[in-house]
Amino acid sequence: MNPNTTHAIEVLKADSSKISSVDFENLVFGNIFTDHMLSCDFRNGAWEKPIIKPYEPMLLDPSAKVFHYGQAIFEGMKAYKDDNDEVWLFRPEQNLERFNKSAVRLAMPEVPDDLFLEGMKQLIDLERDWVKKGKGNTLYIRPFMIAIGTGVVAAPSTQYRFMIILSPAKSYYSGEVKVIIAEHFSRAANGGIGAAKAAGNYSAQFYPTKLANEKGFQQIIWTDDATHTKLEEAGTMNVFFRINDTLYTAPTSERILDGVTRKSLIQLARSLDIKVEERSVLVTELVDAQKDGSLKEVFGAGTAAVVNPIVGFSYADMYYELPKLENSFAAMLKEKLTDIQYKIDSDPFGWTVKV
Amino acid sequence: MNPNTTHAIEVLKADSSKISSVDFENLVFGNIFTDHMLSCDFRNGAWEKPIIKPYEPMLLDPSAKVFHYGQAIFEGMKAYKDDNDEVWLFRPEQNLERFNKSAVRLAMPEVPDDLFLEGMKQLIDLERDWVKKGKGNTLYIRPFMIAIGTGVVAAPSTQYRFMIILSPAKSYYSGEVKVIIAEHFSRAANGGIGAAKAAGNYSAQFYPTKLANEKGFQQIIWTDDATHTKLEEAGTMNVFFRINDTLYTAPTSERILDGVTRKSLIQLARSLDIKVEERSVLVTELVDAQKDGSLKEVFGAGTAAVVNPIVGFSYADMYYELPKLENSFAAMLKEKLTDIQYKIDSDPFGWTVKV
Repeated sequence: MNPNTTHAIEVLKADSSKISSVDFENLVFGNIFTDHMLSCDFRNGAWEKPIIKPYEPMLLDPSAKVFHYGQAIFEGMKAYKDDNDEVWLFRPEQNLERFNKSAVRLAMPEVPDDLFLEGMKQLIDLERDWVKKGKGNTLYIRPFMIAIGTGVVAAPSTQYRFMIILSPAKSYYSGEVKVIIAEHFSRAANGGIGAAKAAGNYSAQFYPTKLANEKGFQQIIWTDDATHTKLEEAGTMNVFFRINDTLYTAPTSERILDGVTRKSLIQLARSLDIKVEERSVLVTELVDAQKDGSLKEVFGAGTAAVVNPIVGFSYADMYYELPKLENSFAAMLKEKLTDIQYKIDSDPFGWTVKV
Repeated sequence: MNPNTTHAIEVLKADSSKISSVDFENLVFGNIFTDHMLSCDFRNGAWEKPIIKPYEPMLLDPSAKVFHYGQAIFEGMKAYKDDNDEVWLFRPEQNLERFNKSAVRLAMPEVPDDLFLEGMKQLIDLERDWVKKGKGNTLYIRPFMIAIGTGVVAAPSTQYRFMIILSPAKSYYSGEVKVIIAEHFSRAANGGIGAAKAAGNYSAQFYPTKLANEKGFQQIIWTDDATHTKLEEAGTMNVFFRINDTLYTAPTSERILDGVTRKSLIQLARSLDIKVEERSVLVTELVDAQKDGSLKEVFGAGTAAVVNPIVGFSYADMYYELPKLENSFAAMLKEKLTDIQYKIDSDPFGWTVKV
């Protein structure tokens, strides 16, 4: 953990709120932002005074390093409102820890704990009305950091901006998800930045995903780039495979994001006496299990959709449809996890943190 | 090649020039920009009217996709002034072609040929006084494109900005360059974006390079990420190895940038009856050649430094010093190439293009 800052947060309130103009029943994910944002610059080797201020565009020099060298990292989190109008975060210290790991890997300064955690709480506290009650309603939280120093020489910036922006979201339903297993394109290199939540990892996936979309598939399950034989993660989610009654998911590595939903589901499943193995699953294993009927479920795990069941997968131009289950692990784990997040059920793991 | 745009470029001139305040004898690479820049937005599926206007900061929404998903590509080029005060570009169509290849790989729109080439010429023509005569003096050209559409959902933007900014530069001398051969970290994945001049490829190198710097090395020679046995490219340069009198350089691939300086040096060397082989050089070959004395030179090739001799390399904690040569290929090729670029010598390849 990092030392805290010595700066109190300055708060500059918006003159009026735009909340009444928002249609909370028909939200498009990540498109509308709340009235305020948190912003804090790093200059001369230190974090300056953070400010919570009205959400607004920012002025940047065309030579700012984020535009040229991709020094940019982020996190994705959510706030939930319970029936008593209390607002809760889910394991925010995990996101803080991963954010600062990403920062190190991208040669960016780590963010002080209190700037990330207390700054976030203070911002969300101000935007309480934007967190709607009812399961499925959330406030999506996007902490991010960009290199704002100028100059077109390929070296780390000396100036950075840490920000938190908030976007109200409905339950994320992406329809029936069919995936293609990657045979050529890759998400991450050994010794690369795949484990960091770095901006560059995402744009690298857009083109292969577009090709998959054109074939009628929503996402790609990435394989290791050297042999394309090991199943790794899916687009913006970690991925789980249920063979008979055991859940398998790839171990975290330099290539795979250490997902908070992933690790929570593993712990939750084990507490429910479901066997979980963190090991590489081979593409051939998956195809064989599909053929002999032992493959029961495949699902993605991530902050946006929590658990996203996959209805079928394509590999080597063959499409494999998964069976429809009455009592799927995916549905049960999603319900248990969201019950904890919304404080409907007890939280034996101490995962929820009050704002 | 792409169709041209139908839009003429609007020109908005600066009220005054800051050129008199610039110390052209003591330029830091990439830190000072000329009076004007070119900017053109892509919206609703089409490129809008381009504008040449005073260099100035720009307003972007905090949720602009470039900040979160790294959709950003660039090129590095130079303009040279000859003794007759004519200004020349070097193989600009090569940069255009690579820029649009990068665009496709990052799921960004391709830039029309005339926007890139004629826009660049018109901008440089306006900034002629910033291109100084004398070998070593150049105007560094930075075309780039960023995703400016808003929204924190990991999908390609629908809005982009193409810009060209210009920075006067002196001969790039980076001192004695010692390199470390990568044994753990990697620059690019098979099936990844290593061949694209994508922003995310650069920030991924900053941390390993920082570790190398701390050990007294300036750059890293990257190896293939799967086995770390093949020599690929160095930081921001392609890399050449001279064993006896043959030059070796890695073939371009999905992992390796198709460098304009690289391909020009290959053609130039062959025209001088130097044998050049484009094939993977193994780390073990390099170490063996160093030990038996057949390794004569190692040098980087890129736009910034043109040719950058490497004085020694480290591998597996052993440091190998290269011999000092009287008549190095590096020095000869650099002189020949820059003589063509500055129109001191004839241009049998048709590489130079008048502004």
